[in-house]
Amino acid sequence: MSIPAEPVANAPAFELSPATDAGHRAVTLAEKHAEQFLARAEEHDRDGTFPHENFAEMQRSGFMACTVAAEFGGIGLDSLHDMMVAMNRLARGDASTAIAANMHLAGAAVIGRLLRRARAEGDAGAAAVIEDLLSRVGSGSTVMCYPTTERGTDLTSPMTTATPVDGGYLVNGRKIFGTISPAADLFFPSVRVPKDDGGYLTATAAIPREADGLQVEDNWDALGMRASGSNDITFTDCFVPKDMLFAVRDNYARAGQGFADFALTANLPLISTFLGIAEAARDHALHATTKRKGPKKKALGDRIPIQQLVAEIEIDLAVCRAMVERVGRIADEFLKRYATTDAPSAEGNALMKETQCMKYVVNRKAIEVVDRAMTVTGGGAYMGRHPLARLYRDSRAGPFMQPYAPYEALEYIGKVTLGMDPTVDR
Amino acid sequence: MSIPAEPVANAPAFELSPATDAGHRAVTLAEKHAEQFLARAEEHDRDGTFPHENFAEMQRSGFMACTVAAEFGGIGLDSLHDMMVAMNRLARGDASTAIAANMHLAGAAVIGRLLRRARAEGDAGAAAVIEDLLSRVGSGSTVMCYPTTERGTDLTSPMTTATPVDGGYLVNGRKIFGTISPAADLFFPSVRVPKDDGGYLTATAAIPREADGLQVEDNWDALGMRASGSNDITFTDCFVPKDMLFAVRDNYARAGQGFADFALTANLPLISTFLGIAEAARDHALHATTKRKGPKKKALGDRIPIQQLVAEIEIDLAVCRAMVERVGRIADEFLKRYATTDAPSAEGNALMKETQCMKYVVNRKAIEVVDRAMTVTGGGAYMGRHPLARLYRDSRAGPFMQPYAPYEALEYIGKVTLGMDPTVDR
Amino acid sequence: MSIPAEPVANAPAFELSPATDAGHRAVTLAEKHAEQFLARAEEHDRDGTFPHENFAEMQRSGFMACTVAAEFGGIGLDSLHDMMVAMNRLARGDASTAIAANMHLAGAAVIGRLLRRARAEGDAGAAAVIEDLLSRVGSGSTVMCYPTTERGTDLTSPMTTATPVDGGYLVNGRKIFGTISPAADLFFPSVRVPKDDGGYLTATAAIPREADGLQVEDNWDALGMRASGSNDITFTDCFVPKDMLFAVRDNYARAGQGFADFALTANLPLISTFLGIAEAARDHALHATTKRKGPKKKALGDRIPIQQLVAEIEIDLAVCRAMVERVGRIADEFLKRYATTDAPSAEGNALMKETQCMKYVVNRKAIEVVDRAMTVTGGGAYMGRHPLARLYRDSRAGPFMQPYAPYEALEYIGKVTLGMDPTVDR
Amino acid sequence: MSIPAEPVANAPAFELSPATDAGHRAVTLAEKHAEQFLARAEEHDRDGTFPHENFAEMQRSGFMACTVAAEFGGIGLDSLHDMMVAMNRLARGDASTAIAANMHLAGAAVIGRLLRRARAEGDAGAAAVIEDLLSRVGSGSTVMCYPTTERGTDLTSPMTTATPVDGGYLVNGRKIFGTISPAADLFFPSVRVPKDDGGYLTATAAIPREADGLQVEDNWDALGMRASGSNDITFTDCFVPKDMLFAVRDNYARAGQGFADFALTANLPLISTFLGIAEAARDHALHATTKRKGPKKKALGDRIPIQQLVAEIEIDLAVCRAMVERVGRIADEFLKRYATTDAPSAEGNALMKETQCMKYVVNRKAIEVVDRAMTVTGGGAYMGRHPLARLYRDSRAGPFMQPYAPYEALEYIGKVTLGMDPTVDR
Repeated sequence: MSIPAEPVANAPAFELSPATDAGHRAVTLAEKHAEQFLARAEEHDRDGTFPHENFAEMQRSGFMACTVAAEFGGIGLDSLHDMMVAMNRLARGDASTAIAANMHLAGAAVIGRLLRRARAEGDAGAAAVIEDLLSRVGSGSTVMCYPTTERGTDLTSPMTTATPVDGGYLVNGRKIFGTISPAADLFFPSVRVPKDDGGYLTATAAIPREADGLQVEDNWDALGMRASGSNDITFTDCFVPKDMLFAVRDNYARAGQGFADFALTANLPLISTFLGIAEAARDHALHATTKRKGPKKKALGDRIPIQQLVAEIEIDLAVCRAMVERVGRIADEFLKRYATTDAPSAEGNALMKETQCMKYVVNRKAIEVVDRAMTVTGGGAYMGRHPLARLYRDSRAGPFMQPYAPYEALEYIGKVTLGMDPTVDR
Repeated sequence: MSIPAEPVANAPAFELSPATDAGHRAVTLAEKHAEQFLARAEEHDRDGTFPHENFAEMQRSGFMACTVAAEFGGIGLDSLHDMMVAMNRLARGDASTAIAANMHLAGAAVIGRLLRRARAEGDAGAAAVIEDLLSRVGSGSTVMCYPTTERGTDLTSPMTTATPVDGGYLVNGRKIFGTISPAADLFFPSVRVPKDDGGYLTATAAIPREADGLQVEDNWDALGMRASGSNDITFTDCFVPKDMLFAVRDNYARAGQGFADFALTANLPLISTFLGIAEAARDHALHATTKRKGPKKKALGDRIPIQQLVAEIEIDLAVCRAMVERVGRIADEFLKRYATTDAPSAEGNALMKETQCMKYVVNRKAIEVVDRAMTVTGGGAYMGRHPLARLYRDSRAGPFMQPYAPYEALEYIGKVTLGMDPTVDR
Repeated sequence: MSIPAEPVANAPAFELSPATDAGHRAVTLAEKHAEQFLARAEEHDRDGTFPHENFAEMQRSGFMACTVAAEFGGIGLDSLHDMMVAMNRLARGDASTAIAANMHLAGAAVIGRLLRRARAEGDAGAAAVIEDLLSRVGSGSTVMCYPTTERGTDLTSPMTTATPVDGGYLVNGRKIFGTISPAADLFFPSVRVPKDDGGYLTATAAIPREADGLQVEDNWDALGMRASGSNDITFTDCFVPKDMLFAVRDNYARAGQGFADFALTANLPLISTFLGIAEAARDHALHATTKRKGPKKKALGDRIPIQQLVAEIEIDLAVCRAMVERVGRIADEFLKRYATTDAPSAEGNALMKETQCMKYVVNRKAIEVVDRAMTVTGGGAYMGRHPLARLYRDSRAGPFMQPYAPYEALEYIGKVTLGMDPTVDR
Repeated sequence: MSIPAEPVANAPAFELSPATDAGHRAVTLAEKHAEQFLARAEEHDRDGTFPHENFAEMQRSGFMACTVAAEFGGIGLDSLHDMMVAMNRLARGDASTAIAANMHLAGAAVIGRLLRRARAEGDAGAAAVIEDLLSRVGSGSTVMCYPTTERGTDLTSPMTTATPVDGGYLVNGRKIFGTISPAADLFFPSVRVPKDDGGYLTATAAIPREADGLQVEDNWDALGMRASGSNDITFTDCFVPKDMLFAVRDNYARAGQGFADFALTANLPLISTFLGIAEAARDHALHATTKRKGPKKKALGDRIPIQQLVAEIEIDLAVCRAMVERVGRIADEFLKRYATTDAPSAEGNALMKETQCMKYVVNRKAIEVVDRAMTVTGGGAYMGRHPLARLYRDSRAGPFMQPYAPYEALEYIGKVTLGMDPTVDR
């Protein structure tokens, strides 16, 4: 048999690698965590339980503070590219944990950017509030959840409403897909704030778990990503003090100013988790190629059709890695260029377009890679407890993820390419 | 809103329709059963339980005897095409039940063909044994299971062995994917029989459930088709009397003489169940198009991209229906031509090639239709109890089904097309 | 080497076959013609010349009258399915000739239907005019051209205008893609006729080649289908007597009543020509598999990846044949049901939807089959005079063909499926 | 109408950009040349003539010496990534010219690497010979052609033979696809040199155009790339002095040591020309979106299905750019690491694998982008003189290009991924 026990051991794998020191530290931690999480993934998937122990370990290791600046006790990872690499590694172990962790880490990164902006604008009050928040995240005492999705509307048009009252706002509404909610101490729902003219502003409210009127359901029971704790969260007359409303913008129902900024930080690492799923599936497929089936007991890997299936997987991984790497680098340049200001809409849309190109490809390729890995592996992959059965279900989450369904992404990408107003007709 | 409550109500749907009277009766029953099974599908899927009540109802209605001749109390369905239509309908309700019922019904059809042959050859002894069997199936007192799959080998080369002993054989071996096993009274494992020259004959043994040494495991826990009861079945020194060994052929490890005959009857209706899955998914998608999402509350069905997704589903269904119908008709002609003899290998392979073309397409299209139906439906389809989540898992079973993995099917089809020996190199 | 000189010689090929006697006669003629046309195809393709000798031969053999009733000297082929089979065979020799012949033959079939209707409605005057026409076609003295396409509009909305004048109409306009124009004696442009209310009726005018104001350009110089003579045709104040205006309908700009009727007869056989292209490409690929390349001089056909490519071709052909056969049969039933009346819109649209499903698939699969056949053949297929180079260019014509671009077909199919008004938004 | 005349004028296009100063100079020249070549492309394509004037202009501008070091009068471009960008730009104007120029430029780059190696190894004699060559290329007086392809064998196993004779070798053989041959002054056929043990060495011979026995045919008449002058070249007892045989290696019929080195330099920029074809097609599609078609005269670009087609093009371009950029960067690191030595086989194969992943994707995507651009444009794109008709034919050349057919590439990629000997079984 010509297949060595350890495939391509001595040759470069061309996997993604971090570009910064902080990125290197985060990725190293992610790889260690992934190994441990993998051992628990099947059980949490089967039972639909939230892997609290995974988060405890990430708190202890400092990984949950990796996007927090060093001044607040974090690792200071500020490259989105490197964050994508870290999430990619984490997802190889357990994709549910990765997307849950990302919710928190992206939140921390966004808040860090708000601080930079508040400081640049000389807004000491806002800066102090944020610094306090970041200290709590940096010390590991606070886990954040950023629920933005609601039934029957889209990201640009939240229906959860923050109604102005004396000293603050009363928040009412229901969020779905509240990933990481079982572990969260602090929730940041996107909200709309009524304007005098009948329209709305958009904003983000900060509400502690113990707030009156905040209810985290225990209703996450999905096809996949079953350990992500993506429960519904309801807000009933939740009081939010005035200074706990952030990122107030006059862009309701528009994919304009400020949209790219938030969506990038939140979504790019989410997309790279699906590359992690694909890479995990590939490893299962390679592992299976040493098996011998059929009357001649030929090893799977010695059959040319299997080699071709492995190649198709490899090609798809090469496509995904190249796109993740390129968009990550471009996004880092963009975020540096607009570190303390909103980017012009045209530029934000151009980058969001490129991001959606990547999302469209990576989400689909991850599904296809898992499918091919199942074909390589054979009927065993259809067994309920086979890791590929979990990856098959997890991978299908990708195309549902915000801000666009695949057919909407095409409309958006086309409109931006044609220089048109990119608002999707829905 | 321009979408009527009942889509295309007055126009022909071009779905498959039976060509014979017996087929019409079977299809009518299948449609009624499917409606009831649908209501139970979610629960059995979730719990992985076998739907004994479905089988009791099919016994009562006579559907479980539909492929048995009228002389034995059956419906006398002898068109493979119409059998495909019936399975297509049953699968719309519950694909697990359909593939389990098919195992039994195809078995009855094959036995019916053995009887025709025994009579044509004037083998009164064999005929009497088979007539007894068919009477029991026709009266509804016997459910059959035909386990053929084993780990590490293929259909042409069973490793379960029937060793000649005084008055019969001792059967030893383990079958996997023993669909319908929880309800079966009589098992027909494919076996090999040692020859004096060191080679093997192939055959099929009949073993009652209560036989010593027969053990039906309770270990079916798969990604999908969870209610099909596809447990492992072990045979340990199971005694089989001489006249309970059928279809003895000298074709071990060869896809030749006799192979197509059995594989057709067993596999064609299995393939059309996946069209049923796709049609069920399509109905869920159409249902979802009346929902209104997004800031403008436009109905999904009024959006051109959704119309296009619906069209892609419709095109795939049109492809699958045309292939199922054409192959069904060709297979019926073939089976009539070779009603009492084996077909020449070249002709059997040509038809098996055409069948594999259909299987390749229908299995894949079913997966794609479900995928698109999920996209049309949106995030709700990712919830664990949504019917599309079940169909997503069920549909993936298709490419694993016998006798060829997709990449093997390509090799087989190519070899037959090129006029070569079609044995797959494995 | 294991590949026989004559692949699959003794096994059924499952190619399309005619269902009627007249169909059998037409298909037999088409097969003979195809063989001769193949020998001339390269030269006409290279030079962009019209194959007048092909048409002379088809006149002599009676093939050019195959859709004319026996009472007028024709073959009496009235099954659309069989017409599709005949065009499929003709296209294997030269697709340009096939689509040109189809223009004429479909015209004769449509006129035959007009006669049946005129007789049923007791319109003796109209019947006499049509009988005269059919006699001329039946005797081989008249070739017809049905130009319907114009720049910047669609089939339902011709801009060529027949303005009422004393005793008839003056026709003005420009048609493009006037296939078969170099050989045509009689032209039937679709026209609009101004109504008093400012709207239009649609109709078809009959204009002899020698009419004043009719000009056939010599400007057909396309990527493929270069021998089809699809020149522009201009009409400048062409006088058309009153009784030479046919099929007057009040359906301008609507894909409703009467649309399916015409489009079916004209388009279905057009679609099956692309299956003929694919089958011709397949034969070139099979032929190439006996070549030996590479250091080991292994025959191409002995390589499993080549077998798989051949299989992918075979699968695509199986898909196309099944769709062509099924839609042909359904269309024949439809045309019989509505032999002398317009079909209800819902039913016409349902069939047109099924037709567009077929067109979408067959046009695309033909391109893919040619592409794979080139891959099997290797670099030689890229030489300018290789038949596959011609098929590569010819096959791309399909998706441009009326009445819908592929993306419009999806919109149309989706709308019909959803029970909506199927007018494409353009 | 909402589409601006100049699409996305103010937003970043994310096209490839050079990373070095020399690269920047070369790319700037390539862009200027491309503009001029575009104007001549149709005529040369139609007539199959070689664009001598394009090469005269590239000689004058210094572009034909861009891969020659500054010490010999060249631009000193030594980044393969940047060379890929330059070829990408050139191909936007005329792909035939680009692949012809690449043959020469890659040759110069390979010779430059030979010089670096000769100097590192202290081989003054070899260095002097190469320096003379580079001076002639740098001064614009010499155009080189590197014919490597032969009928019935592969790149690793040339059958053109250099038989040792007194003072040198006699070369005999026939090369095909001798791109740039009409303009070449100096030919570098790959050859085999008989060894005493009956095997062969491989090498490259340098033979001036005027050598006795060298014959450049005038037989290039292909489907596409018609202006590339890829004629056959025959060598009949061509005498080659001893010091005009380069890169002698003992690797006949093996894809090992030294293979990647040459193939990279020659093939990577070739692949990026197909991205240039795709980008040119995209521009034609965008241009067409301002047209108004159909009864409502809606602009194409205002139709969502057209926006989606544009998006699919954009996504494919994003995929290709990311892959070209990533592989270019990795290749530059590799070539730097092994500037004066052969790379270890495992590492060379790993990079070649990644390159083949890119080639597989870019070649196929270019074809698909052109296809979609034709669909967006409509029937006009099918006219013989439409630029997209040329791109449709040019783009199909990609998958035929060395060293692997697409199905062989899959086998190679799979074998390398599985850690196996990557020799393709042919």
